[in-house]
Amino acid sequence: MSNSADFRETLEVFDNPSPSRDYTIEHHCPEFTSVCPKTGQPDYGKLVFTYIPDEVCVELKSLKMYLQRFRNEGIFYEAVTNRIMDDFVAVVKPRQATVESQWTPRGGLRSNITVTYSAED
Amino acid sequence: MSNSADFRETLEVFDNPSPSRDYTIEHHCPEFTSVCPKTGQPDYGKLVFTYIPDEVCVELKSLKMYLQRFRNEGIFYEAVTNRIMDDFVAVVKPRQATVESQWTPRGGLRSNITVTYSAED
Amino acid sequence: MSNSADFRETLEVFDNPSPSRDYTIEHHCPEFTSVCPKTGQPDYGKLVFTYIPDEVCVELKSLKMYLQRFRNEGIFYEAVTNRIMDDFVAVVKPRQATVESQWTPRGGLRSNITVTYSAED
Amino acid sequence: MSNSADFRETLEVFDNPSPSRDYTIEHHCPEFTSVCPKTGQPDYGKLVFTYIPDEVCVELKSLKMYLQRFRNEGIFYEAVTNRIMDDFVAVVKPRQATVESQWTPRGGLRSNITVTYSAED
Amino acid sequence: MSNSADFRETLEVFDNPSPSRDYTIEHHCPEFTSVCPKTGQPDYGKLVFTYIPDEVCVELKSLKMYLQRFRNEGIFYEAVTNRIMDDFVAVVKPRQATVESQWTPRGGLRSNITVTYSAED
Amino acid sequence: MSNSADFRETLEVFDNPSPSRDYTIEHHCPEFTSVCPKTGQPDYGKLVFTYIPDEVCVELKSLKMYLQRFRNEGIFYEAVTNRIMDDFVAVVKPRQATVESQWTPRGGLRSNITVTYSAED
Amino acid sequence: MSNSADFRETLEVFDNPSPSRDYTIEHHCPEFTSVCPKTGQPDYGKLVFTYIPDEVCVELKSLKMYLQRFRNEGIFYEAVTNRIMDDFVAVVKPRQATVESQWTPRGGLRSNITVTYSAED
Amino acid sequence: MSNSADFRETLEVFDNPSPSRDYTIEHHCPEFTSVCPKTGQPDYGKLVFTYIPDEVCVELKSLKMYLQRFRNEGIFYEAVTNRIMDDFVAVVKPRQATVESQWTPRGGLRSNITVTYSAED
Amino acid sequence: MSNSADFRETLEVFDNPSPSRDYTIEHHCPEFTSVCPKTGQPDYGKLVFTYIPDEVCVELKSLKMYLQRFRNEGIFYEAVTNRIMDDFVAVVKPRQATVESQWTPRGGLRSNITVTYSAED
Amino acid sequence: MSNSADFRETLEVFDNPSPSRDYTIEHHCPEFTSVCPKTGQPDYGKLVFTYIPDEVCVELKSLKMYLQRFRNEGIFYEAVTNRIMDDFVAVVKPRQATVESQWTPRGGLRSNITVTYSAED
Repeated sequence: MSNSADFRETLEVFDNPSPSRDYTIEHHCPEFTSVCPKTGQPDYGKLVFTYIPDEVCVELKSLKMYLQRFRNEGIFYEAVTNRIMDDFVAVVKPRQATVESQWTPRGGLRSNITVTYSAED
Repeated sequence: MSNSADFRETLEVFDNPSPSRDYTIEHHCPEFTSVCPKTGQPDYGKLVFTYIPDEVCVELKSLKMYLQRFRNEGIFYEAVTNRIMDDFVAVVKPRQATVESQWTPRGGLRSNITVTYSAED
Repeated sequence: MSNSADFRETLEVFDNPSPSRDYTIEHHCPEFTSVCPKTGQPDYGKLVFTYIPDEVCVELKSLKMYLQRFRNEGIFYEAVTNRIMDDFVAVVKPRQATVESQWTPRGGLRSNITVTYSAED
Repeated sequence: MSNSADFRETLEVFDNPSPSRDYTIEHHCPEFTSVCPKTGQPDYGKLVFTYIPDEVCVELKSLKMYLQRFRNEGIFYEAVTNRIMDDFVAVVKPRQATVESQWTPRGGLRSNITVTYSAED
Repeated sequence: MSNSADFRETLEVFDNPSPSRDYTIEHHCPEFTSVCPKTGQPDYGKLVFTYIPDEVCVELKSLKMYLQRFRNEGIFYEAVTNRIMDDFVAVVKPRQATVESQWTPRGGLRSNITVTYSAED
Repeated sequence: MSNSADFRETLEVFDNPSPSRDYTIEHHCPEFTSVCPKTGQPDYGKLVFTYIPDEVCVELKSLKMYLQRFRNEGIFYEAVTNRIMDDFVAVVKPRQATVESQWTPRGGLRSNITVTYSAED
Repeated sequence: MSNSADFRETLEVFDNPSPSRDYTIEHHCPEFTSVCPKTGQPDYGKLVFTYIPDEVCVELKSLKMYLQRFRNEGIFYEAVTNRIMDDFVAVVKPRQATVESQWTPRGGLRSNITVTYSAED
Repeated sequence: MSNSADFRETLEVFDNPSPSRDYTIEHHCPEFTSVCPKTGQPDYGKLVFTYIPDEVCVELKSLKMYLQRFRNEGIFYEAVTNRIMDDFVAVVKPRQATVESQWTPRGGLRSNITVTYSAED
Repeated sequence: MSNSADFRETLEVFDNPSPSRDYTIEHHCPEFTSVCPKTGQPDYGKLVFTYIPDEVCVELKSLKMYLQRFRNEGIFYEAVTNRIMDDFVAVVKPRQATVESQWTPRGGLRSNITVTYSAED
Repeated sequence: MSNSADFRETLEVFDNPSPSRDYTIEHHCPEFTSVCPKTGQPDYGKLVFTYIPDEVCVELKSLKMYLQRFRNEGIFYEAVTNRIMDDFVAVVKPRQATVESQWTPRGGLRSNITVTYSAED
């Protein structure tokens, strides 16, 4: 598995235009793909980021480039969703955030993983 | 970026017919377009206003004319949604308000921004 | 604008068959039309009544006849929704009620108005 | 109107397999028909039962047979929904229950009635 | 009815990659079939597992194999849903869990059963 | 089984307002019910009439009353659809007609029957 | 019933910008209302015009004003659809045209009428 | 693989009530399951029969029982669809028939097989 | 109105990779906007191109830039759809092509225009 | 661009179980990804194969493995769809075939490519 700190460098931010107000940003990324570490087969999913920015917002193109780095990475559903949250929190430092991953069916089963974060916890 | 005070002049109001009651007005504006300040390319979105009026209600045709003023304006998703809320609050002075912007996909990512306001805050 | 008391006479009621229990009645009326007082053009909408009856329930056919009285009436979205709630409360005297009006698009904008009432307020 | 006690005899129950746990059972019955007592015309609706069983669960086939007994019964929307709840509570004695009836349009209006019950009330 | 302890042996687990965080895992299993003990006819349903893992997560392929063991098992809707929850809790020991079963129509009626569990209860 | 000639008397017609033109009339009747002659259980379906009128059109209220006569009639899917076509042709004498019946599921199977007629055949 | 020639005067046309090419224009008019001549109750429907223009195209605002003239007119479904086609052909003189009317349910039945025209017939 | 002649015995027929007319019967069977001969894993699908009867129609309950015989049968998608058509033609002898099988996803791929038959070929 | 030859220069092409085969390319462009020449108000629509390429295919980014040139252009629905087809045919020289424009509602009416072209005509 | 002959080796076939009959097989592959040769960015699409087999059918798992070989391949929409058809025809030799590719939006535009083949041409 690749080094997470390395992946994080791809994420860029810009100044929140309204830091005095709590408001919500939602990014839907339906084109996520990684690799199952057990079978070596590609996994396909949709990622949804929902967050309240603090000082900075995530820059959209860098978010796309960051997600593409998982294209040939072997990693399980549960692990990748938690790792993406960790990277997002480390770089964007949001007041609150949710990352949801929705995967295409495998063996007749379809899975979703939802991770939430609050700066107050 | 154009002067915001100037844009606000386009918004008109009329007397709330039932100011003694808290009730909700929702306007869906699916034909919003502005310009990405980075690429110069047009952005397309839908705006939804939901508010509890106080002394006045926003006049629908003026809301439409106000939104059209962004047609050739270069402004980011997060900034334009907050600016529209600021203009709306300045002119309509609602008890509560939500402005949600829903944008068409760019680079495979689709974004929504939601700003809320309460006169009590 | 027509006299409201006059319109109310059209609404009829019948005894609530279970007054000892709080339960909810919902009537969807998708065929509402009135006239825009500004342009003289017809407006089209759907009305939804949701209420907890007290001693009486509204009789369905009379509700239909009552709504038809607005067919050639010039009245704004916000005003007509509040007026219908006032008439409904005056005649049916519900424990709680919500009236929602959902209008077809005008000038590219689509509007909904939601008024709520509680006998306890 | 037929005798309610008589109808109730049709409802059968079986022992709740997990009485120590609060869990929810939902039955959708889209094929309900009764008769409008005013016009003699048939009414058509869908009934949804949602309940937390206590000592017994309702047997599905008997629920179907019970509902069929209303086929030629003249009874109003509000009355039949409350009566079905009364019968259900009398026989199944649930911890909590909701009965919702959703009717096909009459005179351009479409109605839903929702009745809730709690053994604790 | 088969021995439950025996079925449980099919369920396998792996270490939760983020045990310090409460997050939610959802598995949709639309291909469940068992047999009605009364008529001997097959029943068809969809199972949805939603849980917050504690020390371990359920392995997907083993969950599929476990569910297949009910293929020729005679068991009622209410009983099978509760039994699957008991097996899931015994092996996965989640912080919280919900099992929902959604069945195809029988005799014009369609049923859903929802069981919830919390380690804190 | 009731006498078909008798049922036909219920159907009424009115003069086609544009007999010189071939045009299509479609009536959707989602509230049909009859009885299964084998089990005695009610069947529920939707009937769709599509026809090119010749000298007369079917009167809507009489079509509704005609369909209600099957409410307590024991008759199979295939037979009732053909019989309704025979009655419709006998009374309305259309240039062309299609009758489609769409039934709710029984034993996990859902059936549609489609009968077509042309005066030229 | 009002004089049809009179109604036709409301329809306006403009020069077809590409008369050398056969192409299709479709107008959806979901806000049509007229009155049932039998019951005096309002009818509500959607009209769809699809045509290949010859020398002229129908002007949209005049089509809207024309349709509004039926607002208080007593006329049956079949008659109004044929009359609108007659008016349209008389003024717009299209190469081909279809007028479809789709009505909201009455007495549990929902109707559509479709009239087609070809200049070559 | 089981003997096909044996399976056919399960299919029963009844006399076509309108043999003089070509009309269409459609049966949707969403609860089909068989076994993949390669992996031993269950396959799940929906079968749709569409046919013009000649002298007889297939009896619905026997069709259901026939399809259940494949529950533990190892057979590929393409083979089972053709075999079911062969059995159906052998017993029902329709004028025309189509059998379509629609399978749930396996390995990210979803398959449908469609076989048609005509007595005239 | 701008000079059409000028607009065409924006459209770029690339060599068809399979010119020996007739195949179909479809481009959906949901973000089209122009200006109503009568009211000066913006119009919003979706354009769909469907064509069989001959020697060249249209380059996607240039198609996008071409469509953006209409952003502040005053032109009617019927005219702009025909003009876009003329430009497309002049530059791409397809074997066959269809251009469909689907516009958002104005004054309660919603319009679609469909233009087809064949090199053989 | 990789050597096509090389990719074809991945495709495997099995004997058509009913070669005497023309029937249709449809495979939906929603998880296709390749790389844009111009920007180096990944493209995402869905591929649909529809064919009438002759002597052999394509084996599903090999079709999946074949499509995965494009994961890091730089190739345009039009070229990859034609190349996949060429490979499919070379190995499976169907009587007829259609390959449709449906791509996710890029720059606000969404594209579909459809290639058909017939052994008789």
